[in-house]
Amino acid sequence: MRISQDRLMQSLEAMWQIGATPSGGVTRLALTDEDRDARNLLRTWFEDSGLDVRVDDFGNMFARREGQDDLPPILLGSHADTVPQGGRYDGILGILSALEVVRTLNDENIATEHPIEIVNWTAEEGSRFRPPLFGSGAALGFRDAETALDTADANGIRFGDELARIGYDGSPANRPADAAACIELHIEQGPILESENLPVGLVQGIIGQSWHEVTVTGRPGHAGANPMHLRSDALVAAAEMVLKVRRLALAGTDYSVATVGQLTVEPGAMNVVPGKVTFTMDARCANDDDLATIEAGLADVARRVEASEGVSVAISSSGRPESAPFDAGVMSAIRDAIEAEDLPLRELWSGAGHDAQPTSLLWPTGMIFVRSKDGLSHAEAEYSSPEDIAAATNVLLRAAVALANQSLSG
Amino acid sequence: MRISQDRLMQSLEAMWQIGATPSGGVTRLALTDEDRDARNLLRTWFEDSGLDVRVDDFGNMFARREGQDDLPPILLGSHADTVPQGGRYDGILGILSALEVVRTLNDENIATEHPIEIVNWTAEEGSRFRPPLFGSGAALGFRDAETALDTADANGIRFGDELARIGYDGSPANRPADAAACIELHIEQGPILESENLPVGLVQGIIGQSWHEVTVTGRPGHAGANPMHLRSDALVAAAEMVLKVRRLALAGTDYSVATVGQLTVEPGAMNVVPGKVTFTMDARCANDDDLATIEAGLADVARRVEASEGVSVAISSSGRPESAPFDAGVMSAIRDAIEAEDLPLRELWSGAGHDAQPTSLLWPTGMIFVRSKDGLSHAEAEYSSPEDIAAATNVLLRAAVALANQSLSG
Repeated sequence: MRISQDRLMQSLEAMWQIGATPSGGVTRLALTDEDRDARNLLRTWFEDSGLDVRVDDFGNMFARREGQDDLPPILLGSHADTVPQGGRYDGILGILSALEVVRTLNDENIATEHPIEIVNWTAEEGSRFRPPLFGSGAALGFRDAETALDTADANGIRFGDELARIGYDGSPANRPADAAACIELHIEQGPILESENLPVGLVQGIIGQSWHEVTVTGRPGHAGANPMHLRSDALVAAAEMVLKVRRLALAGTDYSVATVGQLTVEPGAMNVVPGKVTFTMDARCANDDDLATIEAGLADVARRVEASEGVSVAISSSGRPESAPFDAGVMSAIRDAIEAEDLPLRELWSGAGHDAQPTSLLWPTGMIFVRSKDGLSHAEAEYSSPEDIAAATNVLLRAAVALANQSLSG
Repeated sequence: MRISQDRLMQSLEAMWQIGATPSGGVTRLALTDEDRDARNLLRTWFEDSGLDVRVDDFGNMFARREGQDDLPPILLGSHADTVPQGGRYDGILGILSALEVVRTLNDENIATEHPIEIVNWTAEEGSRFRPPLFGSGAALGFRDAETALDTADANGIRFGDELARIGYDGSPANRPADAAACIELHIEQGPILESENLPVGLVQGIIGQSWHEVTVTGRPGHAGANPMHLRSDALVAAAEMVLKVRRLALAGTDYSVATVGQLTVEPGAMNVVPGKVTFTMDARCANDDDLATIEAGLADVARRVEASEGVSVAISSSGRPESAPFDAGVMSAIRDAIEAEDLPLRELWSGAGHDAQPTSLLWPTGMIFVRSKDGLSHAEAEYSSPEDIAAATNVLLRAAVALANQSLSG
């Protein structure tokens, strides 16, 4: 039982036309005409495969292949929206690989005990409507429904209005009530698999995050007339903190990263000693102890530079999504599938958020990563090879069937 | 023989009305109506003191008190323009203290061997017309005259046109031909005198400067999906360089400062590893060896972070004004005056540029600094006390008279 690489790539290529950019990427923001066209194409493909399609009140689409028993479904899928000038694979690959799994099962006339449902979660990216994981978070009860529908984009256009405009305002009754297991296949968006020459990865979970904003206040002054020992240079203090943040992440016991991605200097003139620096810290760790260590280290270095540089440092938290380790049973099914496919096994954490995060809080969840060229993502040059995609989709097929026949195997 | 603190402060207070800001500062940009009004007031005061006023083709004003002999003049003065929302003292204090010196000589009926000329150099600040030291640089032959007159401000208005509009387009014949000595009295613009509780300082020269622009190119990437060991983080590399620049300045053998005042991060998002950082380095040293050591150190750390962080670093020079040590004879006259006034002697370098820089390249030049509260300058809160101003002006009086009677004392 093998998926068809050619058929899967043909579906991807057809989908890439919708929102295609001149540089080979895709711009398909949530609830735009491009998103509608992509949904309509998915609906046609789903119906052509004999699936029953339903849409919930946040536009999340579910395409159901019945099982032999009245059991909760195995949920496979991801999202169809992209960031502006995004890539061809992020999101949509998880839906079309799930479709290819169903098409293969249909070809082979294979029945499963549990139903299989393909999901297209609405507005995962957070580019047009915030926060990210918009549709999954709302449908799974992590966000107030009315607030979600009232959320406006940057132009003041309501989520609910756009949903109705594109014809995907479904019913609350269609929200997912239960799932026996969920698997999201996604590109890695990072360089680990490529650097180790591996096509696929078994995701251990979505790492915890800690977001902070830091303001360092020193004393501005003439760059010529202020001797070094009489300065309170906010940028010198911030530079010490940037390097400390890096050292803290390197000292993590498990997967652990920390980034200062935004930093601004005031007044920001060549001949003026910096009086104020603001920067962000984005730390992500597989285990919460590492995250707490980084947070404590940030506070420590703040106190240290206050003493050494004569600045004052204010630190405020702007979010702290907890880590979401994946389900042992789902991971085991994916692990068995990777081994059955004779692929090397690599377990790794996801440093990015995914719709698998909210599902993991309710139902047994796992993810399969596909190697990303140059670790690129949210970029037009995003690329995963047809061979890697096929390998990952065969893993998805095996894992999904195993989970869908749990009581047979168990 | 003492100057009048009250008369000097009254003149300052009258001048502060011209371009006064609500917060107690002054905005008197070069060749604006405010600059014209200040010039007209100066002209009235000069003429009331019996001085002969002439204006050159860059609007530089010279007010001459004749000497007993046909000798080159002693040139005393500074500039009347300010930066936007500038302070009350920067520049104008050097002109009005020179006027107070002349008024005192007049009161006492003291004749000098050399003539004394008070100068108001045009557009020293570089806020409206660039480069700074505009009028002195052009009149003293360091800049092409036609290019200078054709220089436009940010609104495209020509220097030459504005000069004519305010009625200060004089003759090339009035440029200064020679000077026996030049003294510029100016606020320190830094915190050294205040930190040592000293009212005045003897300036040793204007330190050399070295300006660089640095571009660090790394590789942008997802802040969650890129493990630390696979990153090329441009900001981490830049932070190493910022700290190295500080260490290099601290290691200087004489007065030595270095500043990273401008720094921008791209793409500049919390969840993206910085791909590019550009920053400026402004280094200033009393001796050129220290300046060369800082430049070499910047190149060294660039190579080091290229190797350690996997980034590439491009460094370009954007200017390198040489240091201008002041004349031993003029310094000696100021030193003698400080001692005669029973003031503590402190010699220090100027970290800022002044009109005394171009004059020092042609004629014997020196400067007297006045203590600045909190080291502030180019700020509305700029402040020097009437007592410190009077002390410095008495020093100026003694030094000017000594230099104006050089052949008597020599």
